[in-house]
Amino acid sequence: MDLETIISQIGPLDQSAIKAARARQDILTKPQGSLGRLEVLSVQVAGITGNPLPNVHHKVVIVMAGDHGVVNEGVSAFPQDVTPQMVENFLHGGAAINVLCRHVGARVVVVDMGMAADLHPQPGLVIKKIAHGTGNIARGPAMTRDQAVRAIRAGAEIADSEIGRGLDILATGDMGIGNTTPSAAIASAFMGYPAAQIVGRGTGVDDAGLQRKVTAVQRALAVNQPDPRDGLDVLAKVGGFEIGGLAGAILTAAAYRRPIVIDGFISTAAAMIAVSLAPQVRDYLIAAHTSRELGHRRMMEWLAVKPLLDLQMRLGEGTGAALAMSLVEAACKLLSEMATFGEAGVSEKAAG
Amino acid sequence: MDLETIISQIGPLDQSAIKAARARQDILTKPQGSLGRLEVLSVQVAGITGNPLPNVHHKVVIVMAGDHGVVNEGVSAFPQDVTPQMVENFLHGGAAINVLCRHVGARVVVVDMGMAADLHPQPGLVIKKIAHGTGNIARGPAMTRDQAVRAIRAGAEIADSEIGRGLDILATGDMGIGNTTPSAAIASAFMGYPAAQIVGRGTGVDDAGLQRKVTAVQRALAVNQPDPRDGLDVLAKVGGFEIGGLAGAILTAAAYRRPIVIDGFISTAAAMIAVSLAPQVRDYLIAAHTSRELGHRRMMEWLAVKPLLDLQMRLGEGTGAALAMSLVEAACKLLSEMATFGEAGVSEKAAG
Repeated sequence: MDLETIISQIGPLDQSAIKAARARQDILTKPQGSLGRLEVLSVQVAGITGNPLPNVHHKVVIVMAGDHGVVNEGVSAFPQDVTPQMVENFLHGGAAINVLCRHVGARVVVVDMGMAADLHPQPGLVIKKIAHGTGNIARGPAMTRDQAVRAIRAGAEIADSEIGRGLDILATGDMGIGNTTPSAAIASAFMGYPAAQIVGRGTGVDDAGLQRKVTAVQRALAVNQPDPRDGLDVLAKVGGFEIGGLAGAILTAAAYRRPIVIDGFISTAAAMIAVSLAPQVRDYLIAAHTSRELGHRRMMEWLAVKPLLDLQMRLGEGTGAALAMSLVEAACKLLSEMATFGEAGVSEKAAG
Repeated sequence: MDLETIISQIGPLDQSAIKAARARQDILTKPQGSLGRLEVLSVQVAGITGNPLPNVHHKVVIVMAGDHGVVNEGVSAFPQDVTPQMVENFLHGGAAINVLCRHVGARVVVVDMGMAADLHPQPGLVIKKIAHGTGNIARGPAMTRDQAVRAIRAGAEIADSEIGRGLDILATGDMGIGNTTPSAAIASAFMGYPAAQIVGRGTGVDDAGLQRKVTAVQRALAVNQPDPRDGLDVLAKVGGFEIGGLAGAILTAAAYRRPIVIDGFISTAAAMIAVSLAPQVRDYLIAAHTSRELGHRRMMEWLAVKPLLDLQMRLGEGTGAALAMSLVEAACKLLSEMATFGEAGVSEKAAG
């Protein structure tokens, strides 16, 4: 599918499923509203899927990897080699995202969207490489507009394939040394906040590194002049291949009426690209957690989403999203599996 | 075991396990500290259990049920019959706590600590009834001091038995129409805040019901004059049988070095009783979530614990604790199962 077709297929939430789910929540054996955000989540997923008793059993975290020319500005605490090394770690099951996906019963899909290094083909690694890393955004564009479109389409293909395999709920994840810098540039471009209010310490740079990141983002915006009314332009000029891939996966999951759990800083930047291309995507998003990365709260406000968790995490990989996906599943199970007052023979609330 | 013996067996956290867990967190394949509170949790559980690679696979939620004479003051939106009806619902697997325990792989243990009604004996129901409901605390004491001791000891026996069956981690839950009122009285007694700053709407009383609850708590404190330096006195005068049972289970789990996940308002009141009897219990507590019930934040501040979740829940039963228990398990699995930098061949952070 081309991008326009995907976007055209993203419809509004199903109001009749929402109404039915809400009505059922009110007759389950608990005080009305006492499950708080879990009730709201279950109703949202009903509206997304069109199913008043939604099931999100098949849980998939798509982790997209890419490299970033801006690492030449000294913006990361880790060397670029760590991108493929961590992807190998994902493939061998030793990373945090693997542990958490085993814990919550989710599958991890690892995608090379544009690493500088080439890993040998191996089971579990999907290769959709657009290029060997982006250009240095502090000196010029990250990629061409054509590459941006190709990155989104590659992400769409992955999501399409996973939906074909039964995906009920998508979580987004990322790996890419340096990728908090383009993510901050994307956020600054859309929101107009100065770089210093968005840029954080990423994997843990010191004060000098933080200043280099702020400068790199300022330069990226000044040199490239991304147009905030044009999501493809923002992605091409100051984005990344994994960010484009995630945006494509998000758009596609929404087109197929699947809930999308957004991880932290990088995933949220990808969601901003997706929403800039198709504002109706917002309704399909579930924000996993508040990242410790500085600008993340503001980005979630811009998206008008409220994160489920705040565990002071800042790892990426989809780790926050994996945990939140389990909460979404719990919310759906409560809606489907709890007894009603009538079924259980429990007296309802007295008047007054 | 008598109460003094249990209390005497609650030791300090194991500092060498804490040190070993912390050292391991720092060589796992992630930026140091990037898993935030999950890292801190894993280290706490290491200290609690004395195991630098703790495992909390056997997860148990103990749900204690009791009735409350104070319902005669019109403090609840639901009739007292709902206590045994909901206990039946627990035993048949139709309540929120059952759904969540199936989701996270925990077992539910249901205990009649003092319901007004008698259910016929049936599989899964543990009967430790101290009396058929408490006295009306707005008019006199909830129970005798001897009954308070017996309630704590009954809870201790349950925890002891579950630990014998392999319990790795305890979560607390409650059922009892009217039990936010004695819980608020306990909190007010220990903290000295006026009732109006603690009492909330419970299952959902209206403004008049809320005023009746505030008045009932004020009267309970004035009539009974509970001594905040004496936890047994507070429990006996303004507590409840399920609250005493939970306090006993908490003390016992701590004595056996098991982590304890505290649910919402009622469980937190029970934890306050336990901490007043044995301050060293604090180190063994993990606060599950912030309840929407008004005074809950203050109670957690008094306990010096920081809740993991804030999902606007206010159901009780152990529902918040069941979800949080899964986060604790995830934290422990990350510590045990993630690859180290050396094992995975991932480069460590560069200097500077």
